[in-house]
Amino acid sequence: MSTTSKSGKLAVSPLAPEKYAVLPPLDGVRIATAASGMRYKGRDDVALFVLDNGTTAAGVFTTSKAPSAPVEWCKARLVAGKGAARALIVNAGNANAFTGQLGAEALLEVAGATARAVGCRRGDVFAGSTGVIGVPLDAAKLLDVLPDLAGGLGPDNWRAAAEAIRTTDTFAKLATATAEIDGVSVTINGIAKGSGMIAPDMATMLAYVFTDAAIPADVLQTMLRLTVDDSFNNITVDGDTSTSDSLMLFATGKAAHKPIIRAGDPRLRDFRAKLDIIMWDLARQVVCDGEGATKFVSITVTGAANTRAARRIAMSIANSPLVKTAIAGEDPNWGRIVMAVGKAGEAADRDSLRIRIGGIVVARDGAVDPDYVEATVAKHMQGDEINIDVDVGIGNGASTVWSCDLTHGYIDINADYRS
Amino acid sequence: MSTTSKSGKLAVSPLAPEKYAVLPPLDGVRIATAASGMRYKGRDDVALFVLDNGTTAAGVFTTSKAPSAPVEWCKARLVAGKGAARALIVNAGNANAFTGQLGAEALLEVAGATARAVGCRRGDVFAGSTGVIGVPLDAAKLLDVLPDLAGGLGPDNWRAAAEAIRTTDTFAKLATATAEIDGVSVTINGIAKGSGMIAPDMATMLAYVFTDAAIPADVLQTMLRLTVDDSFNNITVDGDTSTSDSLMLFATGKAAHKPIIRAGDPRLRDFRAKLDIIMWDLARQVVCDGEGATKFVSITVTGAANTRAARRIAMSIANSPLVKTAIAGEDPNWGRIVMAVGKAGEAADRDSLRIRIGGIVVARDGAVDPDYVEATVAKHMQGDEINIDVDVGIGNGASTVWSCDLTHGYIDINADYRS
Repeated sequence: MSTTSKSGKLAVSPLAPEKYAVLPPLDGVRIATAASGMRYKGRDDVALFVLDNGTTAAGVFTTSKAPSAPVEWCKARLVAGKGAARALIVNAGNANAFTGQLGAEALLEVAGATARAVGCRRGDVFAGSTGVIGVPLDAAKLLDVLPDLAGGLGPDNWRAAAEAIRTTDTFAKLATATAEIDGVSVTINGIAKGSGMIAPDMATMLAYVFTDAAIPADVLQTMLRLTVDDSFNNITVDGDTSTSDSLMLFATGKAAHKPIIRAGDPRLRDFRAKLDIIMWDLARQVVCDGEGATKFVSITVTGAANTRAARRIAMSIANSPLVKTAIAGEDPNWGRIVMAVGKAGEAADRDSLRIRIGGIVVARDGAVDPDYVEATVAKHMQGDEINIDVDVGIGNGASTVWSCDLTHGYIDINADYRS
Repeated sequence: MSTTSKSGKLAVSPLAPEKYAVLPPLDGVRIATAASGMRYKGRDDVALFVLDNGTTAAGVFTTSKAPSAPVEWCKARLVAGKGAARALIVNAGNANAFTGQLGAEALLEVAGATARAVGCRRGDVFAGSTGVIGVPLDAAKLLDVLPDLAGGLGPDNWRAAAEAIRTTDTFAKLATATAEIDGVSVTINGIAKGSGMIAPDMATMLAYVFTDAAIPADVLQTMLRLTVDDSFNNITVDGDTSTSDSLMLFATGKAAHKPIIRAGDPRLRDFRAKLDIIMWDLARQVVCDGEGATKFVSITVTGAANTRAARRIAMSIANSPLVKTAIAGEDPNWGRIVMAVGKAGEAADRDSLRIRIGGIVVARDGAVDPDYVEATVAKHMQGDEINIDVDVGIGNGASTVWSCDLTHGYIDINADYRS
């Protein structure tokens, strides 16, 4: 689990957005944050979201075979409670992962206390934890701050919540959009955290998106699955997959539009488009905060046998340490891209392979382009957004993956974070 | 393709062997080296091996879908020539990979000239190239030095050859052993090069092993496949797979033992054991020269569903940038090992997972061991050989993988090697 130096003194990523999105209040959601002192000193590390009665929930979670206690709990509660939700409590500093029975018991204790503090059933409380793996969660530390949290709820604490759930994140991740359903304006607010251990199939550690739209849980779940395939599942920082990755979507149902009963409803068109934008935005922010990242890299593979093959090839390029270090060094080393295409194990026609960097054709028909001038591409490599396009000459499969470079900063952050 | 700074000024790996193995002459093999000036200045970069008539050959090569011209040539020649071999020419500095038709033509030219220089058929000449990808190979540079090579052949140039084929390697890799077949003593000599872009399925860039035993090509091929599964296919430096990985085994047939006709022949027992040792030795040397490596890491996974699953889990741990950086930082961060087990996608019973580092039980039964004292394991982490054992509690599958840590040195070498 990635987490910051205890002082949180990491320099802000050079790829951070110029300013934070300001999230408006969202009818049916109240938020509070507190400092449990569990790991970090002098900063809030717990966020509580209280959701009005009638809120529905959906979630997608890590595919890890060793999921954290909160992941197991949330998955079970979504099924058992048919997607009803009344609260979400998230802490940073301890992932409550690989903590065995003790971890499960600590979670039950926290969920129970949260339910009592906000007046709901324990089963309607969702939870997220991020931080060190394998250290039993000290539930008492969270219980101690619950009265403060319950007493401090307000509609405007989005930024505070996004700050509280950070670990190695160098900036808080926020996004907001307005959509229309049936002529009624609804809000979508999202926060996320994540910077290392970012990989499919679930990229960010934790992302929570809220709306005041009135959408049944099963429709919410379908929409979430569709949108995540084009956003969080297409990003990678280091190819590592967390035990704790969680993405949840909550709908308070306060908006006055007529009922929605299916994901294919054309009245959801604008909402789904805006939800996609929120997800792209948050996923992109996570990549831009990749540990040590200095460049945002967009890799598009076309001409693959199918979408899955295209994605595998793009991921092979995105996760190659040799490609990532070449990008860090601003070296248009397309030979390493060829290597990464070759090792992906998917069909590719070497003799019709075409590679473009920054839109400039570097190689085609199985060899370097005769007109290729390295200096032109080298200039593109000096920017902070690198575009790599590869056509593998087999079929029509296409996919885009977002990633970042591999720098000394990554080693600095990860080679001694616990010491 | 990994290659060194032009001056070859990289510091020798701290994991290099204390001294080089001294390879004895091997009946039927003569060797010469030369400086083509293709890329490196002031050092030899071509090695020519001339093999007596009757030599048999076997090879395993990269699984890359974009193999180099020499890989395609060698694979085709092994089939067409039924494993007959008379010469091997290897150059460093240019991989002749992704060079299209020009690359194939350059190779034909080099093979033809080599055949003329040593007096054999072009089809009996094998070739290997390592270095930059995508730059057309300048055949003339090799042709220019062929007269010198042919004139300088000798039985004692093993070390010179191992030096000549280096790229980012910080030390030459050599190994030798003596085996008995039918009471007759035979020699096995091997050289290898490789340090980055080391991953299965084929780890080193280039490895060439020679023996004076008399073994038919098909038997040689079977033995090579069996031995590589336990050696070169179980090592990884950065998870990247080269376009050029080649491992070849040549047998000159000069030894006076009775004919061998099958790999299962009990008279081959000692030979096969010694061949395994040579392969392990060379594979281990490649890992110890992993770009930037400061620690040799041995990862054994037991209790997996089967051998393949065990290997995938071990590779997931070995290739995890977070595990590798933790090792570099001498941090016994077993939480990251749990993460890597979880993401491997193979069956693992989280609640009976057992992790040992340096033989000390760190975690068992799905949680940290109650008796675990981090300081003890931290001491093991300070050594230059790290042992990680993971039992995933499912079945009887077991596998060991060798790897190294991920350090600033890797970034230094790879972020600007062409600049």
